[in-house]
Amino acid sequence: MLISHNDINGYDRFYRANLINSLSGFKSVSLIGTKNKSGISNLAIFSNIVHLGADPSLIGFVNRPLEAAPHTLTNIESTGFYTINHIHTDWIEQAHQTSAKYPVGVSEFDSCGFTEEYIDGFNAPFVKESVIKYGMKLIEVVPIKHNNTFFVIGEVVIISVPESIISSDGFIESDKANSCCSLGTDGYYSTELITRLPYAKAK
Amino acid sequence: MLISHNDINGYDRFYRANLINSLSGFKSVSLIGTKNKSGISNLAIFSNIVHLGADPSLIGFVNRPLEAAPHTLTNIESTGFYTINHIHTDWIEQAHQTSAKYPVGVSEFDSCGFTEEYIDGFNAPFVKESVIKYGMKLIEVVPIKHNNTFFVIGEVVIISVPESIISSDGFIESDKANSCCSLGTDGYYSTELITRLPYAKAK
Repeated sequence: MLISHNDINGYDRFYRANLINSLSGFKSVSLIGTKNKSGISNLAIFSNIVHLGADPSLIGFVNRPLEAAPHTLTNIESTGFYTINHIHTDWIEQAHQTSAKYPVGVSEFDSCGFTEEYIDGFNAPFVKESVIKYGMKLIEVVPIKHNNTFFVIGEVVIISVPESIISSDGFIESDKANSCCSLGTDGYYSTELITRLPYAKAK
Repeated sequence: MLISHNDINGYDRFYRANLINSLSGFKSVSLIGTKNKSGISNLAIFSNIVHLGADPSLIGFVNRPLEAAPHTLTNIESTGFYTINHIHTDWIEQAHQTSAKYPVGVSEFDSCGFTEEYIDGFNAPFVKESVIKYGMKLIEVVPIKHNNTFFVIGEVVIISVPESIISSDGFIESDKANSCCSLGTDGYYSTELITRLPYAKAK
């Protein structure tokens, strides 16, 4: 079926949110760990994460408007550091629960059943239960003026990953760690490798 | 194993690219269709696509530096329109082939075996073989100064999707259309639904 611009604008809020959120396809859902100035930890689920470049190693994510999602971005801006932790198929419900609105003094690590882990002096909490995780240093927060979201850019400064799932060419086989992906705001999926393909050349 | 900032910087270019590209997790790989001012079509694979918001319906993607990936962004800036087309598990090799460097006068639709489709007067070519696809109007190109990439923001203005895979709440069940996701620069995956979860509330 064809859905026009007018159709999209005419849908009710929840129908449109589900439609547009799922339209862009499968996403790399992860938990972002931070601390505020008082040292209270925060953990929240994010699914719009992109690779920006490998040299320097930059990764970006989308933060919703501050009134909807204030804690993570505020903490990142005050400390300059955050962690990104893969979500695995056996604890999706706990990870999804971090999307609930907890007050500022409550840590989602405790409320949702995760264990804070501090690695090598890095100044933000990792999720101990996560098998693939990395520490980020804030580079820039780009305000997106059209809808008051933010594109948050950071540099990868530390990675924790089992050596057994890194291929000889550096590729991390996340499916072997049961990392999941998401669709829309609430769909969670496992993945199965179809193929890795060689660098494409014009024929 | 722990990988430090120094380790990352010490890896050779290809190892580091595979590691960092796969670190951020599964991605919504799609084909972006455009036309240049002379009407010659272009088709290229992109995997860093994010949902920015549903009201207005904004989707963003990362375009590599212009010297590495010039055609899509140049076409989008000159016409103001582009299409994003899901990639399905049965034609991954053709989709990957669009990443090869073809000269500006050569259309990847022809070279890689895809069929141009024009829908409802929309001013950019869709991929006929794609089951889920949407037409975008350019809103803003945000230059990322740290590595010369671009964050391209557009608004969804038309959607083509089978009614049979839209749930009653608007959610598009992309796995039923065999849309795939990617990991790193060259890994392609099928997905299987684990669960959809209700809106989370603080307990």
